[in-house]
Amino acid sequence: MRALNVSERRTAPPRVGVSTVIFALQPPAGQPVGDAPHDGATLWLPLVRRTRAPFTGRWALPGGPLAWDTSLEESARSTLHEATGLSPRYLEQLYTFGGRDRSATDLRVVTVAYWALIALADRTPMESVENVAWYSVDALPPLAFDHADIVALARRRLRAKATYTGVAVRFLGEEFTLGELRRVHDAVLGRTSDPANFRRRMLASGRVEPTGAVRRDGAHRPARCYRFVAEPDAELLTPAPTPAETTERKRRTS
Amino acid sequence: MRALNVSERRTAPPRVGVSTVIFALQPPAGQPVGDAPHDGATLWLPLVRRTRAPFTGRWALPGGPLAWDTSLEESARSTLHEATGLSPRYLEQLYTFGGRDRSATDLRVVTVAYWALIALADRTPMESVENVAWYSVDALPPLAFDHADIVALARRRLRAKATYTGVAVRFLGEEFTLGELRRVHDAVLGRTSDPANFRRRMLASGRVEPTGAVRRDGAHRPARCYRFVAEPDAELLTPAPTPAETTERKRRTS
Repeated sequence: MRALNVSERRTAPPRVGVSTVIFALQPPAGQPVGDAPHDGATLWLPLVRRTRAPFTGRWALPGGPLAWDTSLEESARSTLHEATGLSPRYLEQLYTFGGRDRSATDLRVVTVAYWALIALADRTPMESVENVAWYSVDALPPLAFDHADIVALARRRLRAKATYTGVAVRFLGEEFTLGELRRVHDAVLGRTSDPANFRRRMLASGRVEPTGAVRRDGAHRPARCYRFVAEPDAELLTPAPTPAETTERKRRTS
Repeated sequence: MRALNVSERRTAPPRVGVSTVIFALQPPAGQPVGDAPHDGATLWLPLVRRTRAPFTGRWALPGGPLAWDTSLEESARSTLHEATGLSPRYLEQLYTFGGRDRSATDLRVVTVAYWALIALADRTPMESVENVAWYSVDALPPLAFDHADIVALARRRLRAKATYTGVAVRFLGEEFTLGELRRVHDAVLGRTSDPANFRRRMLASGRVEPTGAVRRDGAHRPARCYRFVAEPDAELLTPAPTPAETTERKRRTS
């Protein structure tokens, strides 16, 4: 197909894009990293610097146009893999952003936003990806398009789900220290808990039990490892697929 | 732009469509209506018979392609108005369906689905709209595309919100009889409650209070009218706009 001229681009049928908010508990080692907020506990996400108009040079969520032969979820997964080299522990459709003016004067794009949780083992080195840098959600640079709105909605969704133990398991794995669990709690809710208080409340809740393992956490003395007693919330561990996604998955594997 | 040929249509960038699941407590008077389920309490929705390929002759959700100058929510609202002549009491984005094969062999469409509640006063006559008929959600005809999946997800979302008094207010208005309230309850949850039990439980809950008005409900003796004591749930009365929508709304009114 030939390229569209300016006025054709303006009135052309809107296209579909997929963008993903990828939350991690810390930036990977060996990656370009933005400023951390002064008080420590925060979530991190990878951003991609745009190399073309509109918003050239601005940071944006990883994503791109939806190809004709790719499902929405496949598109979100492959974006995530390109930006981080990882597979998500959790991936869910967030919301679809379709404001008329969100693409500035360019061809209008309706963006299906996903949000994801990934687990990064402490100080795992990761190969650098061109134009990708990691930022604290509390110290984001100015973002392209309405991506700041997308990040804000993803944070609200994550907080609304943060009563579920599943979030912690996705970030930390099945076994964790109470210090790690507190960092998840504080980063998700944007709080700073007192370590001793948090420890007491969590042990009194009966929701965690020691695994018997011990782990050295930085310069501190060795810490006991715990796991959740109850089944982690089913909804967050295996996000209920929509009927459409189920059908699609069946088709793909058959 | 010239029309695309068959292979170009297959590999063209996916287009955006908007479809809406419009729930009402009863079909409007004077409209073509499908079979009702035998046990009465059910929700109704309008469907549109397709007049062109793919799925010619099949019933589908009201909707259409997203125009370049229309926001997603505007598109859902105008679709709803065309099919029912009404404005929704509640309208919310449901989910975006983007399976690769959902448009059969035609140009691929990613559909942003909305769900809506509308209030129809008993026996309000409504002008017929060509190719529109009302069906019980419990006795749907075979639907085009994956629209049966969209309806199923909308019913799940409605049920998940049905603990909120807001759903009832949206269907019934601020004042209602306990018989009407029971019909909402049963239709949403797909149950059949005993009238005397329901009445006793509802009065004991302290959630409703008499308004002083009395209403004749069909052939029955006059029934007292009630309203909810508590503020109806804020979330369902005024769905939290996403930041993007807020911005858009501001822009439009400024």
